[in-house]
Amino acid sequence: MRSPLEEEVLARIRPTEEERERIRRVAEELVRAVDSSGKAQGMVVGSIARNTWLKGDRDLDVFMLFDPSLPRDRLEEEGLALARSIAREFLAPHTEKYAEHPYINMELEGLDVDLVPCYRVPDPREIMSAVDRTPFHSRYIAERIRGLEDDVLLFKQFAKSGGFYGSDQMTEGFAGYLCELMVLHYRGFRPLLKAAAGWRRRTFIDMEGIAEKTFEDPLVVIDPVDPRRNVAASVSLTRKFEFVELARGYLERPSPYFFETAGDPPLSREAYGEVLRMRGTRVIGIRFSTPPYIPEILVPQLRKSLKAVRGLLERHGFIVNRADCTMRHRHCLILFELMVHRLPAVRRHIGPPLWQASNADKFMARHAGETIAGPFIEDGCYIAEVRRSYLDALDLLSSVETLETALGKHVKQAMAGGWEVLEGEGCWSEEFAEFLSGFVLRSSPLLRVRRRERAGT
Amino acid sequence: MRSPLEEEVLARIRPTEEERERIRRVAEELVRAVDSSGKAQGMVVGSIARNTWLKGDRDLDVFMLFDPSLPRDRLEEEGLALARSIAREFLAPHTEKYAEHPYINMELEGLDVDLVPCYRVPDPREIMSAVDRTPFHSRYIAERIRGLEDDVLLFKQFAKSGGFYGSDQMTEGFAGYLCELMVLHYRGFRPLLKAAAGWRRRTFIDMEGIAEKTFEDPLVVIDPVDPRRNVAASVSLTRKFEFVELARGYLERPSPYFFETAGDPPLSREAYGEVLRMRGTRVIGIRFSTPPYIPEILVPQLRKSLKAVRGLLERHGFIVNRADCTMRHRHCLILFELMVHRLPAVRRHIGPPLWQASNADKFMARHAGETIAGPFIEDGCYIAEVRRSYLDALDLLSSVETLETALGKHVKQAMAGGWEVLEGEGCWSEEFAEFLSGFVLRSSPLLRVRRRERAGT
Repeated sequence: MRSPLEEEVLARIRPTEEERERIRRVAEELVRAVDSSGKAQGMVVGSIARNTWLKGDRDLDVFMLFDPSLPRDRLEEEGLALARSIAREFLAPHTEKYAEHPYINMELEGLDVDLVPCYRVPDPREIMSAVDRTPFHSRYIAERIRGLEDDVLLFKQFAKSGGFYGSDQMTEGFAGYLCELMVLHYRGFRPLLKAAAGWRRRTFIDMEGIAEKTFEDPLVVIDPVDPRRNVAASVSLTRKFEFVELARGYLERPSPYFFETAGDPPLSREAYGEVLRMRGTRVIGIRFSTPPYIPEILVPQLRKSLKAVRGLLERHGFIVNRADCTMRHRHCLILFELMVHRLPAVRRHIGPPLWQASNADKFMARHAGETIAGPFIEDGCYIAEVRRSYLDALDLLSSVETLETALGKHVKQAMAGGWEVLEGEGCWSEEFAEFLSGFVLRSSPLLRVRRRERAGT
Repeated sequence: MRSPLEEEVLARIRPTEEERERIRRVAEELVRAVDSSGKAQGMVVGSIARNTWLKGDRDLDVFMLFDPSLPRDRLEEEGLALARSIAREFLAPHTEKYAEHPYINMELEGLDVDLVPCYRVPDPREIMSAVDRTPFHSRYIAERIRGLEDDVLLFKQFAKSGGFYGSDQMTEGFAGYLCELMVLHYRGFRPLLKAAAGWRRRTFIDMEGIAEKTFEDPLVVIDPVDPRRNVAASVSLTRKFEFVELARGYLERPSPYFFETAGDPPLSREAYGEVLRMRGTRVIGIRFSTPPYIPEILVPQLRKSLKAVRGLLERHGFIVNRADCTMRHRHCLILFELMVHRLPAVRRHIGPPLWQASNADKFMARHAGETIAGPFIEDGCYIAEVRRSYLDALDLLSSVETLETALGKHVKQAMAGGWEVLEGEGCWSEEFAEFLSGFVLRSSPLLRVRRRERAGT
């Protein structure tokens, strides 16, 4: 049973009959165009194929299924040629894009259409690339989702509002397919929320009882069409429990704010500076030009770099409270909030124990006369108090040592071309306003909902 | 074989024949006085009994051995009465003192004489208090030390100069008896140094092969008169390896500075302030009136208090570089050098994981609306960023929280009467000048020797 609130939300997020008609018509025309080429078979996949798209969604995915006997390079060639000819036939502006292999993206009647070539394999175990699996997903859901479409819409909207919709590297949340599987498995939006409210640290779901592999991920959902794949591999521990928190909150006291996607406007430069002063911390960012790679490649590298630079700061005695990174069109930013950003001239350097006589002698020879104090003996070990190389974290991050840490490959290349170290309000720009606001005003998604409720009433 | 250097040192530290004569005469007169009382038997113990005292040593210990059938309270009574009557007989100013039981201290012909009552037990296994063991020690050494007295003198002087002579709580070094045993065991000063140069983390010596117990101490020397006792229990790991370092240094390149006891004069207030500025750190001290207890009781309590207050500082995010404490006649001082003494307003408070639903709910209820940021979710746990109670370590140490940590009993009593928190040069006073100098100018004993050599040549 759906509540009046849920019905109200559905009325708002369900596509209109007119929208449905239009999209179905465009989809059918495209499929027909693929079929009539005689080279491949057209198929609509994604949420539009199974009536689980939210009003206003513009993504239409049309797959072109080629015969598996076609060599890979010919598939790419013929796939692109067919897609281009269709785009020209529809007079649609189009560009070539890349995932595992190239495809064509075009704009048609206000829709964002992808024309993706793939192989028509008889069994998902025989796929040659990840896109070959998509038609199987689409069929699996389409054959079972009838009667649960509205529940999928509610859950997708709930996930979008809660910030856990999307399996991309930046979001680390739930893909559309995962949303559908979850609703299917628990038979509805509310039963899913009730189950999630009780989730433990690790959750294992194997709807078809076919699992052939174990996973360490916080959420494991065995792909019904591929027993060796975790559909929820993208879901981070944090994102999982942000969902769990929202589920508990919604069950306890539902409100329309669980389905709102409009957040607070980002902080202005002045307001951002004001929050920093209140916190009393120093926030330092490393900014550099975004190299020409897609987020799926660059974001993991940014995360790796963040970890490396955090380690550098900590090895030098600077204490990090928070750290995060973001990739924008023009620049990337790696951001640190420091509890301690200035340190005294003296640094403690722990040497070998004296019972390792030759090591101890070497340590003494190296340090005698070069220290601020010591070497002296503490608990049987030599300790030398030496001059600290970097008294201020700003100097460390500006130094070549930053470039010499274990940065991601393309991040290192980009930073080799130069980087800026920015501080406090200096980090702020239009480009990063939203990211910086989220960074300093961080709160759990349920808390955000409750705040909006209070502000709204 | 002794080197010319060692012979020169001996000529300086060996008591003159005149000194020997005088001390022996005083000792004999006192023993005779005890004997002639008919109540106890007199016995000279300590270094004077075995010709191992350094020129200028003033400590003469005369024990009064009573029959073990005498009840304990009678022993104390009769012991004190006899000692007092002897002191009066010799017209010597005297005072009552306490160790395990009371004794009389008197000044006689420039000597600092202790008249100590004890039981004359037939076997060290039957001792009733620690002082009963002393006559056995004295006899053990006296019967064996002949021909090694000068080596004992050299080692004692070496230990004094190196700062590891004395088994008291503050020194944590080698008692006189241990010095004698070591020279005896290794048959001389240089063989002892050669052995020590190769000591490992743990050293076990059982001269008589009688050990009946195992010990965890860094240096274990089984007492030849008591198989269940470690004579070196007082020796800390640091002190042991300060000796080892000096032994190695002396064997490599000996010099008279290994036997000098005069150190550098303590830093003036200005010079001390100058060193602090150079280090760039903040040094904060807790000062309070010394309660009326002997160092053997109070120093361990001071150490315990130091550890407790250090823990308090660290729990609040202040980073300690060094810490030490001292007990002086008027005041005690617990001193901290901080790497970080000021922190930002925000403090990270890690909450429960969300899969502990009721704990998580409680945490959220307690913190929502009271935080600077959060609660938010990180790796599945709630994190709240709350207002820090103490932004400055000075405020924390001035607060009642300091008194509420696990201080030593008498330290807590003394501090309940009030304490001062002093900072930087403000810690300096004549009383603490030497301690503060050692604190900031800390260096290994060998480094001190080598510096004196360079300054002296």
